[in-house]
Amino acid sequence: MRKVLAVTGIRSEYDILSSVFKAIDDHPDLCLEICVTGAHLAASFGETVKQIRADGFTIADEVESLINGDRKSSRLRGAAIQLLGMIQCAERTQPDFLLVLGDREESLTTAALGAYMDIPTAHIGGGDKVIGNVDDQVRHAVTKLAHIHFPTSALSAERILKLGEEPFRIFNVGNPGLDRFRNTPSISREELFAWYGFAPTLMEQPLIMVIQHVISSEAELGHEQMKATMEALKELAYPTVLSYPNSDAGSSGIIRAIEEYSSLPNLRTFRNVPRLEFVNTLRQASCLLGNSSLGVLEAPFLKLPTINVGNRQKGRLHGDNIIFIDHEPKVIVEAVKLCLFDENFKRQVAEGHNPFGDGHSSEKIAKVLAEIQIDQKLLFKELTYE
Amino acid sequence: MRKVLAVTGIRSEYDILSSVFKAIDDHPDLCLEICVTGAHLAASFGETVKQIRADGFTIADEVESLINGDRKSSRLRGAAIQLLGMIQCAERTQPDFLLVLGDREESLTTAALGAYMDIPTAHIGGGDKVIGNVDDQVRHAVTKLAHIHFPTSALSAERILKLGEEPFRIFNVGNPGLDRFRNTPSISREELFAWYGFAPTLMEQPLIMVIQHVISSEAELGHEQMKATMEALKELAYPTVLSYPNSDAGSSGIIRAIEEYSSLPNLRTFRNVPRLEFVNTLRQASCLLGNSSLGVLEAPFLKLPTINVGNRQKGRLHGDNIIFIDHEPKVIVEAVKLCLFDENFKRQVAEGHNPFGDGHSSEKIAKVLAEIQIDQKLLFKELTYE
Amino acid sequence: MRKVLAVTGIRSEYDILSSVFKAIDDHPDLCLEICVTGAHLAASFGETVKQIRADGFTIADEVESLINGDRKSSRLRGAAIQLLGMIQCAERTQPDFLLVLGDREESLTTAALGAYMDIPTAHIGGGDKVIGNVDDQVRHAVTKLAHIHFPTSALSAERILKLGEEPFRIFNVGNPGLDRFRNTPSISREELFAWYGFAPTLMEQPLIMVIQHVISSEAELGHEQMKATMEALKELAYPTVLSYPNSDAGSSGIIRAIEEYSSLPNLRTFRNVPRLEFVNTLRQASCLLGNSSLGVLEAPFLKLPTINVGNRQKGRLHGDNIIFIDHEPKVIVEAVKLCLFDENFKRQVAEGHNPFGDGHSSEKIAKVLAEIQIDQKLLFKELTYE
Amino acid sequence: MRKVLAVTGIRSEYDILSSVFKAIDDHPDLCLEICVTGAHLAASFGETVKQIRADGFTIADEVESLINGDRKSSRLRGAAIQLLGMIQCAERTQPDFLLVLGDREESLTTAALGAYMDIPTAHIGGGDKVIGNVDDQVRHAVTKLAHIHFPTSALSAERILKLGEEPFRIFNVGNPGLDRFRNTPSISREELFAWYGFAPTLMEQPLIMVIQHVISSEAELGHEQMKATMEALKELAYPTVLSYPNSDAGSSGIIRAIEEYSSLPNLRTFRNVPRLEFVNTLRQASCLLGNSSLGVLEAPFLKLPTINVGNRQKGRLHGDNIIFIDHEPKVIVEAVKLCLFDENFKRQVAEGHNPFGDGHSSEKIAKVLAEIQIDQKLLFKELTYE
Repeated sequence: MRKVLAVTGIRSEYDILSSVFKAIDDHPDLCLEICVTGAHLAASFGETVKQIRADGFTIADEVESLINGDRKSSRLRGAAIQLLGMIQCAERTQPDFLLVLGDREESLTTAALGAYMDIPTAHIGGGDKVIGNVDDQVRHAVTKLAHIHFPTSALSAERILKLGEEPFRIFNVGNPGLDRFRNTPSISREELFAWYGFAPTLMEQPLIMVIQHVISSEAELGHEQMKATMEALKELAYPTVLSYPNSDAGSSGIIRAIEEYSSLPNLRTFRNVPRLEFVNTLRQASCLLGNSSLGVLEAPFLKLPTINVGNRQKGRLHGDNIIFIDHEPKVIVEAVKLCLFDENFKRQVAEGHNPFGDGHSSEKIAKVLAEIQIDQKLLFKELTYE
Repeated sequence: MRKVLAVTGIRSEYDILSSVFKAIDDHPDLCLEICVTGAHLAASFGETVKQIRADGFTIADEVESLINGDRKSSRLRGAAIQLLGMIQCAERTQPDFLLVLGDREESLTTAALGAYMDIPTAHIGGGDKVIGNVDDQVRHAVTKLAHIHFPTSALSAERILKLGEEPFRIFNVGNPGLDRFRNTPSISREELFAWYGFAPTLMEQPLIMVIQHVISSEAELGHEQMKATMEALKELAYPTVLSYPNSDAGSSGIIRAIEEYSSLPNLRTFRNVPRLEFVNTLRQASCLLGNSSLGVLEAPFLKLPTINVGNRQKGRLHGDNIIFIDHEPKVIVEAVKLCLFDENFKRQVAEGHNPFGDGHSSEKIAKVLAEIQIDQKLLFKELTYE
Repeated sequence: MRKVLAVTGIRSEYDILSSVFKAIDDHPDLCLEICVTGAHLAASFGETVKQIRADGFTIADEVESLINGDRKSSRLRGAAIQLLGMIQCAERTQPDFLLVLGDREESLTTAALGAYMDIPTAHIGGGDKVIGNVDDQVRHAVTKLAHIHFPTSALSAERILKLGEEPFRIFNVGNPGLDRFRNTPSISREELFAWYGFAPTLMEQPLIMVIQHVISSEAELGHEQMKATMEALKELAYPTVLSYPNSDAGSSGIIRAIEEYSSLPNLRTFRNVPRLEFVNTLRQASCLLGNSSLGVLEAPFLKLPTINVGNRQKGRLHGDNIIFIDHEPKVIVEAVKLCLFDENFKRQVAEGHNPFGDGHSSEKIAKVLAEIQIDQKLLFKELTYE
Repeated sequence: MRKVLAVTGIRSEYDILSSVFKAIDDHPDLCLEICVTGAHLAASFGETVKQIRADGFTIADEVESLINGDRKSSRLRGAAIQLLGMIQCAERTQPDFLLVLGDREESLTTAALGAYMDIPTAHIGGGDKVIGNVDDQVRHAVTKLAHIHFPTSALSAERILKLGEEPFRIFNVGNPGLDRFRNTPSISREELFAWYGFAPTLMEQPLIMVIQHVISSEAELGHEQMKATMEALKELAYPTVLSYPNSDAGSSGIIRAIEEYSSLPNLRTFRNVPRLEFVNTLRQASCLLGNSSLGVLEAPFLKLPTINVGNRQKGRLHGDNIIFIDHEPKVIVEAVKLCLFDENFKRQVAEGHNPFGDGHSSEKIAKVLAEIQIDQKLLFKELTYE
């Protein structure tokens, strides 16, 4: 049995990773332990470690690391604390692989851990491209540190190749975040609206889902940017579900704006929507608004019209389902109406291409981890340039 | 005045950086503070912070971080502690630039600091290539995090370009480690031999300089590898100066081997040779033995015959002055004799090409830091691939 | 000039310490630097470092240390991070004294710092006694580590003596928290009510001040306990000013309860009331409700009737101004009415004894730090028992 | 089964604790896990974690924490790192008790852990008294934080009572360090001398054991103090076994002095003498020289004449077997001769009183941990003064 030590620091990661964790746990030649850290352990971000426990996975250690602070340095300070805990965890559990996703601080700490401790490290989501964010720098640095790459599209696989990574390390498995949209049971619109406490009379109306995060380079604008979104919601007045932002520096401004508008009548706000309701909300929604990577990565699979406000996600590979706009209440209102009522755009979304795989990524990842040869060739990376 | 916060963790870095620090300190538009960390603060590695103080530079903080341990994790644990201290230092000093060299853990922590705190970070020595070592992974990851690159050769600059870095960030300044070989005063062979306490009768004999570090992936072999070198020295019996290895995991095996042979009559061992004597030893030496990057980076400038034992430095860009051999006492003896007595090889070294610049790198680095525009373009990195 | 490095981690400490800091800063033979840490740096606790900056003190370092978490371990994890930062700060600033107040984690880290680094450490508030809280254990441990004791009453001085501390280390200076009530300018009731936005018609009504913290051993009861208080406030409906709790583990339950009642019409809630308004609110208030140490320590000086709910503060030395009751809405309502309308109790408060000094503690502390002999006798503590 | 999480950071602690660990492991109602930290994990201090593993105990986590440094702050910095790791360990293992010994940094971190995390904490060795050392401050602070006290003598139990601790928490079990002197098998003088490689001709000569640590307040004198001892050894020229000092700040000076005299013909130096040989060496030795607590705590049980040089151990409760002298080579020589040849002194030692119990302490400790009631009374400490 090969032991995989996975690291996760936040709900948004876990949402994508949980089907991968299940595939690993189910594989006869693999076993899984999870190092849970960061926002998962903070009450103010919904203490989502409880979901991981409820899902029945083995938790290796719970490493509290989230600093209660909004400075540019707070995330990095948390990363240092996290790293100390992860070293201790890896020394005790002696895993055969480390596994991490994305471009957050836990990606960097996990990849550094693998590099210095000679543990083969698998990274999901490398090669992506976002602009105006520390995330890009971190994601590509992680690619240079990690030993196995699971990009989520052909384009990202191509970028990893260009970064000088050896082809045998790269597996374009698609986006495992899609798997849960295939796997999660359906609930009816009636049940969903009842769960949210929306009046039955609202059921004919379009449902809007909002997720808006801060951009690290625009942290001080978070409050103002979110206010623009909330103003638009106030005018639109449709039934709306809003999920709180990640715990990045500057998120407090966004949270403040949300709380200022918390009394809007058809608005429901959540630190953490449970997975069943979350997936079904996206299935039932007429429009996804904000700047979540969901709009780029998962919405094409769901044929979900998406409005991305501001600079986050700009420049990434995306499907035909997405409109990029500025932080202007009026413009946001117009864009939402386009998603809801413009037949041309709705057709474009329905027929659009999804570059992120077929919803079977998790099994592919498990298969690679079970079968790849663990040897010096895997551990000692060579630049392919000469 | 632009403030540069430089980070240094070990003597070997400082040897290269001190002329850069001087050039920054001397520049009318720049001021310098140094965050001193790692092995510089450990008595067992010569407490080289004293040299930095003696050189008159402003020390921003002394961040003790070196773990007394030899595990694969020890360096990384130290890096996490170092990072916490560096965050505090950067928050207080509010620098305009961070500056770091090489591929050690302080490179990674400094580059992460710059990326998360939006401080433009300059990295010296990116784009180099060594095989069989975590150093390569770290060096390229640092390139993906840093904002300004000072590679030390055209070949390294080329690799940085291929890694997708924008051309305006890359400055091939040559190796600043050469500057001190240009700047340091000369002392006579008589004075040098007297300083080492070598008998005057030895002065006609060739002088050998030995610096041998551990390779992280071969840490458990350190003792045996060093024993091979010491056996060869025992047979050669020439006047020899040996400098202790870096504080990497596994260095204790090497140190143990050195101490087992410490009574060899013509051997002088040092944790830290002062710079004046160090530079003049290299000028006077007939041969550099071990696996220090000096042999690759600085020895061509000095026309110094070099024997590299084992896998460290293999595959790097090098001059014609170097021979790569295995950890075999007999082979080492033969190779040293070749350096000392083979006229063809000695001619080849004397006429060899030096790819690492002209010994004026420090001024070039200072000029870039004084003149480059600090703006969003510098801070937000774009991959050049599309 | 003797340099005092003071440490503060939270608004409630700073409220008491600021007059001490001013007295040190004003003393011709002393200079002051402050290491600011903990909740002072968290936006969610009002980022009160801004007040320290605004007051013009020299901040040595800002050491972010507050973990975003509610576990029993969160405070201690924060203390470890804080300690690393404080070591760095003390090594750089090389103070002649450390100064800290109370029984929070920064007291323990500061006292440990002084003991291990041989820096004479002065502790304000030792010898006090609270029950049912880790605070007692920490406070007495700090007494055993610290070199100079500034208890705030004769009774506390007596307890420190019994703990085996040498008499020359103990100075009963009274409670420096009283000094600001002497020093702070007065504003009129009109101005105060206007500042809070209370309708002028409310001015004849009694003003209630509420500050309620969590008890570490009853952390999971915080929400319920605060609900009892809020229910009472709802029934009383007087103009009320409520200040948020400290950042202890479990405070999130209390905060949640406050937010559930945030729409009460005559309630004003604050993360941080500015000092001028805070002091004048206490001067104008008819009753202090909750479990703040203000009721025990400062209210007797102000002749302010106080209701202490629950176990916090129980068993401490207190004046005649205070009533101890349980977390029952009805009982709270009754107790508030007693404070407001019972002439016997009001007379008892007005004539009551104040055991905590005369409001001149800060000058006394500064004088001791300026004059005490710094020598081996001060540094090497002896138990007085034999 | 009650789970005991014990913490140990150094060989000298483990030597005393191992019989306690065995008694806990053997008790039907207790189970044991050990958090191993500090010098146990450092190659330069013998990597004594290997002994713990070889003894078959369950290691919960290995927390590397020893800083490679000699500053006053190095130990405390290590303590902060250790504390972070111990929090993680305690959160995962969820012990019913914490157990720690003595007055080193792990005592302070363990006691703080128990106090903040509400885990009953048992402390062995409280109430002792040493002068001129941070150890005293730490030991008494630990007493104020810990919940259960296992002093090693009636006098220490008395001091703990005076410190205001409740009598039900205090158990005078004697010194568990004696248990191994009862339990360890005997080997003959011949075998022992052969093991050390002493010539058979030396067997008639007296055997001297040397253990000398640094005093934190005299750290810079360590080298000179040790030189005095080494000079005396040189003159005495008896077969001598020397064990290296602890990893305290300043120990490097002592180590340097030892290494300068390492070629003395009848001297054997060890970083770590195995327990079997160690115990038998003390049984066979004619004199214990240095300042180890062995001389005070265990030597009376062994009827071993002891010479304590310098201020360490001064003022502690001791038996009739010990002479206190200064760091003077001549005086040391005289004192050793007294131990070896003065019949009056030898009789005094042989008939002397041992205040530290009967060598059955470990079972007593295990019995208390198995039987004491775990409740609020145990967790909430009250000062006994009023």
